[in-house]
Amino acid sequence: MIDGASHFKLLQKSTECSARLGELETPHGKIQTPVFMPVGTRGTVKAMAPCELEELGSQIILGNTYHLLLRPGPELIEKAGGLHRFAGWDHPILTDSGGFQVFSLAGLRKMRPNGVEFASHIDGNRFFLGPVESAAVQRALGSDIVMAFDECTPYPCSYKDAEKSLELTHRWESVSREQPLKEGQQMFGIVQGSVYPELREKSAKFITSLNFNGYAIGGVSVGETEEEMIHAMDWTTPFLPEDKPRYLMGVGTPRQIYEGVKRGIDMFDCVMPTRLARHGTAFVTGGKTLAIKAAKCREDFTPIDENCQCYACRNFTKAYIRHLLNVNEILGVRLLSIHNIAYFMDLMSNIRKAIADGTFIEFGKTLI
Amino acid sequence: MIDGASHFKLLQKSTECSARLGELETPHGKIQTPVFMPVGTRGTVKAMAPCELEELGSQIILGNTYHLLLRPGPELIEKAGGLHRFAGWDHPILTDSGGFQVFSLAGLRKMRPNGVEFASHIDGNRFFLGPVESAAVQRALGSDIVMAFDECTPYPCSYKDAEKSLELTHRWESVSREQPLKEGQQMFGIVQGSVYPELREKSAKFITSLNFNGYAIGGVSVGETEEEMIHAMDWTTPFLPEDKPRYLMGVGTPRQIYEGVKRGIDMFDCVMPTRLARHGTAFVTGGKTLAIKAAKCREDFTPIDENCQCYACRNFTKAYIRHLLNVNEILGVRLLSIHNIAYFMDLMSNIRKAIADGTFIEFGKTLI
Repeated sequence: MIDGASHFKLLQKSTECSARLGELETPHGKIQTPVFMPVGTRGTVKAMAPCELEELGSQIILGNTYHLLLRPGPELIEKAGGLHRFAGWDHPILTDSGGFQVFSLAGLRKMRPNGVEFASHIDGNRFFLGPVESAAVQRALGSDIVMAFDECTPYPCSYKDAEKSLELTHRWESVSREQPLKEGQQMFGIVQGSVYPELREKSAKFITSLNFNGYAIGGVSVGETEEEMIHAMDWTTPFLPEDKPRYLMGVGTPRQIYEGVKRGIDMFDCVMPTRLARHGTAFVTGGKTLAIKAAKCREDFTPIDENCQCYACRNFTKAYIRHLLNVNEILGVRLLSIHNIAYFMDLMSNIRKAIADGTFIEFGKTLI
Repeated sequence: MIDGASHFKLLQKSTECSARLGELETPHGKIQTPVFMPVGTRGTVKAMAPCELEELGSQIILGNTYHLLLRPGPELIEKAGGLHRFAGWDHPILTDSGGFQVFSLAGLRKMRPNGVEFASHIDGNRFFLGPVESAAVQRALGSDIVMAFDECTPYPCSYKDAEKSLELTHRWESVSREQPLKEGQQMFGIVQGSVYPELREKSAKFITSLNFNGYAIGGVSVGETEEEMIHAMDWTTPFLPEDKPRYLMGVGTPRQIYEGVKRGIDMFDCVMPTRLARHGTAFVTGGKTLAIKAAKCREDFTPIDENCQCYACRNFTKAYIRHLLNVNEILGVRLLSIHNIAYFMDLMSNIRKAIADGTFIEFGKTLI
């Protein structure tokens, strides 16, 4: 069971807004915040090797409890010595609770008081996941940061349904909080409350009263508008303690990350860089995107982004990567994944520098 | 047009057999032979990045004229500055003539006196490839070693058909020999003759009379028995000059490569390491293969091969790679490709060392 202590050092507060620089200590090393966490759903950040993530400066990656529970199973990973050793990643890992995927991916769900019974989306096998089971899986995985098990409130959602869902979430997170973990593992609580300010406030107050090692804002990046995402932050952060890290789940675009940092968020995760890479899309200066398969790239013998120093941009042209994508060669997706992760790592590094220099708002103007 | 000079230095002849150590000079660097050339069909060795091939000691890669003619087309690659610059590979490249794929992959072929009219296997578009066109494409690609355009004799083949095919091959290669190439480009002739010793002898004598920069043995690795492949070498090599490199096309297993080196072959190429990687199979010590998806690897937390020092074996276990293959994660194929290429590079390096040390025959006993 966690002791609820803070492992977060607030290094500097922006003079311009609520942005902050911090350092989060974990058993696998310190993390400079604000930080973006590439998503390694099934024990690998898609198309990337750990050495490439290290070279690009990735400090922490995310693993998905739901996917790893299904395949290869927590028993195997525990036998391998935990997820870090299994996946050859000796730096921090955050695992989610699996709740979000149970509600978005799994079939034939049955809500029970203590969790959810569901069918695997792979083979229909039945599983049960609740606060007790989720913590047990994450304990077996040995992640540095464990997430409490909540119900991700759907969107849109009536006030009454959101209130009912919040009650369940609070009960489940109270149970999560008490589960045994491995030495050094931290647990973050998740604030829900949908688009309703009074529920967000109520949730933030209750969840922080449980004294987790950090706090996440959930129920964002589920289909709501960007304005509603920003509201969710504005209604929550005032009730979060300054000395604990804050994590905006599943977000987002470079602009959304900027807006989050501006409101005092320290941690982000999103599948966007690797997913867009698989769709042939690159992030370029200013947070814009570029479809490499477009005809205009056919004879473009310049790098994806002249300002980028990643392996893809140092060595290959848009025309070559377009060719690789057109003939379905793996190297095409690899190079775009490397570039997109590099883009997000550079973005966070520039954001941290801008906060330190007092030029954060100015920096925001460079992003679409 | 090539001058037919030798760019090959014979460094050492084995005291045990016909094996030899040599050095082949090209515009993109020197190659230590015997050498294995990984196949980069469409401008990329499947699943690998150039930096990984370099790290593993790959000295030269192969590109396929047929595939590159179809997509992205030689015009685009020439505009990019040639295949080396297009693909980010600053070391030697050998391109085949396209003939083999025209006969094995393309649809609706029509034989013409000066080449073959065929339909692309991708979209049915019509193309024409003969000795003139093949050399023009390879000139545009700018490969270091260009192959003459021949007809790859099918297997099995009657004496009469083989004789007729050989006549065509000789005519086409005579035309190939006269085509204009770029400064420094070499051209290799190809000896055919199917399984008939007198045709192999006839072909070797005729093709060497044309004075190419090197000689390939073709029509092997087309479905014939291993014994017939060895016969093809035994019937050809006595008629090849010592001071030019010899290339056994499309071969092969570690054992077949050993048998080739033993008979004085200097160069090999084969899709086997990367193709087997995509099928989940690894090469291990002794030239054996191991199916990583096999149940026995499920909880095997040791590297693919304890004797291998590649990135995959230094950092990951069979259990992890098996998991990646089971869930179709690209990293699984990447790690197996790295390992299999490493296996072939180590094999050639051990072969070269054994020739130098006079222990080549002894080394052969370690291969199944």
